[in-house]
Amino acid sequence: MASTKPPSGTRDFLPEDIRRREYVIGTVRRVYERYGFEPLETPAFENIETLLGKYGEEGDKLIFKILKRGEQEGTGQADLALRYDLTVPLARVVAEYRSKLPGLFKRYQIQPVWRADRPQKGRFREFFQCDIDSIGSTSPVVEVEQLSAVAEVLSALGFTDFTIQLNHRALLNAMLESAAVPVDHRGDALVAIDKLDKIGPDKVAQEFYAHNIPMAATSACLAAVESVPAFDALIAKNEHGVAAKREVEQILSLIAETPAAKHVSFVPRLARGLSYYTGAIMEISVPDLAGSLGGGGRYDNLIGMFSNQSVPACGFSLGLERILVVMSERNMFPSSLPSGAVDVVVTFMDAESQAESLKLASEIREGGFRAEVYPEISRKFDKVLKAASGRGAKLMAVFGENERTQKQVSVRDLIKREALQPLPRDSAAVEIARLLRREP
Amino acid sequence: MASTKPPSGTRDFLPEDIRRREYVIGTVRRVYERYGFEPLETPAFENIETLLGKYGEEGDKLIFKILKRGEQEGTGQADLALRYDLTVPLARVVAEYRSKLPGLFKRYQIQPVWRADRPQKGRFREFFQCDIDSIGSTSPVVEVEQLSAVAEVLSALGFTDFTIQLNHRALLNAMLESAAVPVDHRGDALVAIDKLDKIGPDKVAQEFYAHNIPMAATSACLAAVESVPAFDALIAKNEHGVAAKREVEQILSLIAETPAAKHVSFVPRLARGLSYYTGAIMEISVPDLAGSLGGGGRYDNLIGMFSNQSVPACGFSLGLERILVVMSERNMFPSSLPSGAVDVVVTFMDAESQAESLKLASEIREGGFRAEVYPEISRKFDKVLKAASGRGAKLMAVFGENERTQKQVSVRDLIKREALQPLPRDSAAVEIARLLRREP
Repeated sequence: MASTKPPSGTRDFLPEDIRRREYVIGTVRRVYERYGFEPLETPAFENIETLLGKYGEEGDKLIFKILKRGEQEGTGQADLALRYDLTVPLARVVAEYRSKLPGLFKRYQIQPVWRADRPQKGRFREFFQCDIDSIGSTSPVVEVEQLSAVAEVLSALGFTDFTIQLNHRALLNAMLESAAVPVDHRGDALVAIDKLDKIGPDKVAQEFYAHNIPMAATSACLAAVESVPAFDALIAKNEHGVAAKREVEQILSLIAETPAAKHVSFVPRLARGLSYYTGAIMEISVPDLAGSLGGGGRYDNLIGMFSNQSVPACGFSLGLERILVVMSERNMFPSSLPSGAVDVVVTFMDAESQAESLKLASEIREGGFRAEVYPEISRKFDKVLKAASGRGAKLMAVFGENERTQKQVSVRDLIKREALQPLPRDSAAVEIARLLRREP
Repeated sequence: MASTKPPSGTRDFLPEDIRRREYVIGTVRRVYERYGFEPLETPAFENIETLLGKYGEEGDKLIFKILKRGEQEGTGQADLALRYDLTVPLARVVAEYRSKLPGLFKRYQIQPVWRADRPQKGRFREFFQCDIDSIGSTSPVVEVEQLSAVAEVLSALGFTDFTIQLNHRALLNAMLESAAVPVDHRGDALVAIDKLDKIGPDKVAQEFYAHNIPMAATSACLAAVESVPAFDALIAKNEHGVAAKREVEQILSLIAETPAAKHVSFVPRLARGLSYYTGAIMEISVPDLAGSLGGGGRYDNLIGMFSNQSVPACGFSLGLERILVVMSERNMFPSSLPSGAVDVVVTFMDAESQAESLKLASEIREGGFRAEVYPEISRKFDKVLKAASGRGAKLMAVFGENERTQKQVSVRDLIKREALQPLPRDSAAVEIARLLRREP
């Protein structure tokens, strides 16, 4: 018999999982909307050429590809690919609908993405990203509002100890140039520096060495990314570096007036893996999670890859599963999450009472309460009582021959575990609503 | 340059689209939860063997298959496949988590599915299904509660003219047996009958003929599915048919006490395409849409294909896009759908006012309102006014050198198109909140 587990790296979400996910997603949406971001959704798959070449060589290997269909299935070729992030589809959307969208387009998007990574603790092949992006402005106010929004999301979820690291791709490029890293290997150097916290300076140096970067350049870079003064000294003679540093300082000064204040600092070794960033880059983390809760940056050239126009853009992506992992470990979910409990279970003792049970359940629902009919004839009282309690119901209503002849409904309080006075059938729904509204 | 359109048969959802979709999804969820259904979500893809062989030969061809990755990519083989419906993944979930789930498991699931159908008006390759299923009971109360829930969803959305057709697979099988359709061709016969409304009796007869079904059997079936008395006469001698008819009558009689009353009728020619149904089958439609808004039925053997235990089950699936198409054409959306408008746009006339603008926006958001900062220096008043109005803002706040020196904020009412009295900076957020709460 085939396995009944979900595919490797994916998960089924049972009701309780979903309630936690929806609590976080609801908070994210509420805050993002308060900042003026509007929702967007794109298809689960894209034409394969839309995605290939956007995420670097490593990324391309992790894209899930979909076989051509029909007669072409046998060729083993792929024409579609599953969404790998939410940024490239956004760039395509902006190129396609530019004339319909406002000059400054601020969108949020909360959807799953798929990566054929090796599954491990907290890393999945299907996971949700919560992205905000602002399209159409080069102003640092964009970065500041995004950092402010993300900080407000985390604060609203109860996080206090998160840190936001800030750097700038032009600064890093200036550093690599001043350190005399050969121009062809600057991308490799950034990929290596991005791993510094994970693998340590010796292994980063080894990666530089493997890419034939001279020893002196390697030492200069490693010294600079570990110390702000060394970093500043290295970039001081580079005009692009100086301009980028001014931008970083402007962001830091504006941040002071937002909810992100005190969380943000300039960190020279922050490099970010993705190749499309062109300006500020940012990453958010908490002490008890290796890796980040999210990250982002400015990518002024990506949309130009899809249209004839270059359009400035900046975005930030929060990882839903990372947030959920930390919140679960720290027990941060409120006890008042909406539950799947019904208010009333209606049961019947004989087949003749089925119709009356369905009718009462309808009446209870009309009052806005949750009601369901236990679908089997209740021959064993204990069994149906257990089932009703298991559904979280506060009340159980019972119909049988007696109740029908006397035009009544028997009612049991499942919390106090006691029988209540039978209710007249005609006013039963109203009386039940009254009982449910009572303080517990 | 690559196309920027979404892949064939899929769509991008811009903010306004999403608000309509969320209105419908929110209504569906609210009603389903009131009936005691709980949320479930499954991965976008399944192991390919989970899906193959469950939807009939035609269905298998429409499944999107995902290439193996890494070294095996070159083989052109697939190991995963995109979700084709929500029922088969549910059956897998029930088999996997049976011991964790309640004896009667009622779940709803609202997720996209993917079918490589030829795209045409109202038919997409990526579309959402809204399913309810009840697992663990053979009682007709299950069918009745589902029909009641679905009818209540449609009523809540404003539909009054929908009809629910009801039939039973055992009745159809009895008919085919009594009409002497050879046992090997009964599946083909059902597939042909299912198309009756679409292609007419002559073409159905041709399909029977193509499957070597004798002429007399064909005539008997076609007469029966067109007329209830002829149908009843044909099944009257078949003991399974008689039992199934009793079940249908029981459902119809219980329905009378629910919101689905008056919408449901017994329709002998309803056959449903999917092969896994075993009992009652049902379909819901409106006069102005070819095809159905949704359908479902009892499938008591499907879960047994994934576990050693046979488990009774019944479900109903509403098609989100079909509902949206009809609601759009009939103009059924309420005018009060939540909008993406912000309440206030804060603008600045010089770089020195940026920080103050960000700060005021934060203060306005703290009061629960939506605020954003226009990120560019406002050199042209007309341009920024147009941008702020375009965002749907009611108020525009302006900071410049004057305002800073006088510790004030200039405010403009964008609806009345007039400047208001400048507000003292210290109490600006409170005053703005007061202005926003004013009746329009």
